[in-house]
Amino acid sequence: MTGQFALHERLRADTAEVAVWDLSLLLLMNEARWPWLILVPRRPAVREIEDLSASDRGQLIEEAAAASRLLRALHAPDKVNIAALGNMVPQFHLHVVARTGGDPAWPKPVWGQFPPAPYEAAALEARLSALRQALAEGRHRG
Amino acid sequence: MTGQFALHERLRADTAEVAVWDLSLLLLMNEARWPWLILVPRRPAVREIEDLSASDRGQLIEEAAAASRLLRALHAPDKVNIAALGNMVPQFHLHVVARTGGDPAWPKPVWGQFPPAPYEAAALEARLSALRQALAEGRHRG
Repeated sequence: MTGQFALHERLRADTAEVAVWDLSLLLLMNEARWPWLILVPRRPAVREIEDLSASDRGQLIEEAAAASRLLRALHAPDKVNIAALGNMVPQFHLHVVARTGGDPAWPKPVWGQFPPAPYEAAALEARLSALRQALAEGRHRG
Repeated sequence: MTGQFALHERLRADTAEVAVWDLSLLLLMNEARWPWLILVPRRPAVREIEDLSASDRGQLIEEAAAASRLLRALHAPDKVNIAALGNMVPQFHLHVVARTGGDPAWPKPVWGQFPPAPYEAAALEARLSALRQALAEGRHRG
């Protein structure tokens, strides 16, 4: 590994930061259709899951479970979708998306189906506040 | 957890067994467009990632990395896509799919885009043999 971690510019443009976790940045996707979190391990030059150390992989899946619990606490989804795709943005990132039967893409995946629908500014702030409050209350813990 | 693990009938119908790993069944999706593996933790009543124990989660992500290495060794993909969706089949299962720039769905995800295209019988056997041979040679190890 060489160099420093820096969030990819596309992820920076499409998200807002919720928290800095032990391994990952916890980001909110600026897409109003679904409650949608993204975890980005704060390690340079990671593209595939094999590029992380086993220790980091263990931490990543615990952070994925915590993000899933957080969405469950706030939104009571029917299903949480978790995915590392990276066909468009090469920096490794893990999507954690709350899905509801009858949501705009259901039962298909959310990626590549619709043009972006960003939050209104006030709605984005409200969503971020709710996430941070739930974290402060420990609602992401197992 | 109550009851015994049994592979969901839809997964049974759509896949062929490659190997039985410590935690998961390693399955080949019977879809000829992409080299596509599926991991199913051999635990009853798991739907979401939080339903697994932390220990099983750690094992799952190591098995995901091993499946990704296996696809890389055999197919030299441009990207490996990893996803736990479960909008259609409630039993927890993790997709590990080798993607190539210009493949039929690229850069979109593979799910929900195309009708199934199963392998011809001989091609399925050849693919399974190649996977088992690569496993015997340890090409999935880190």
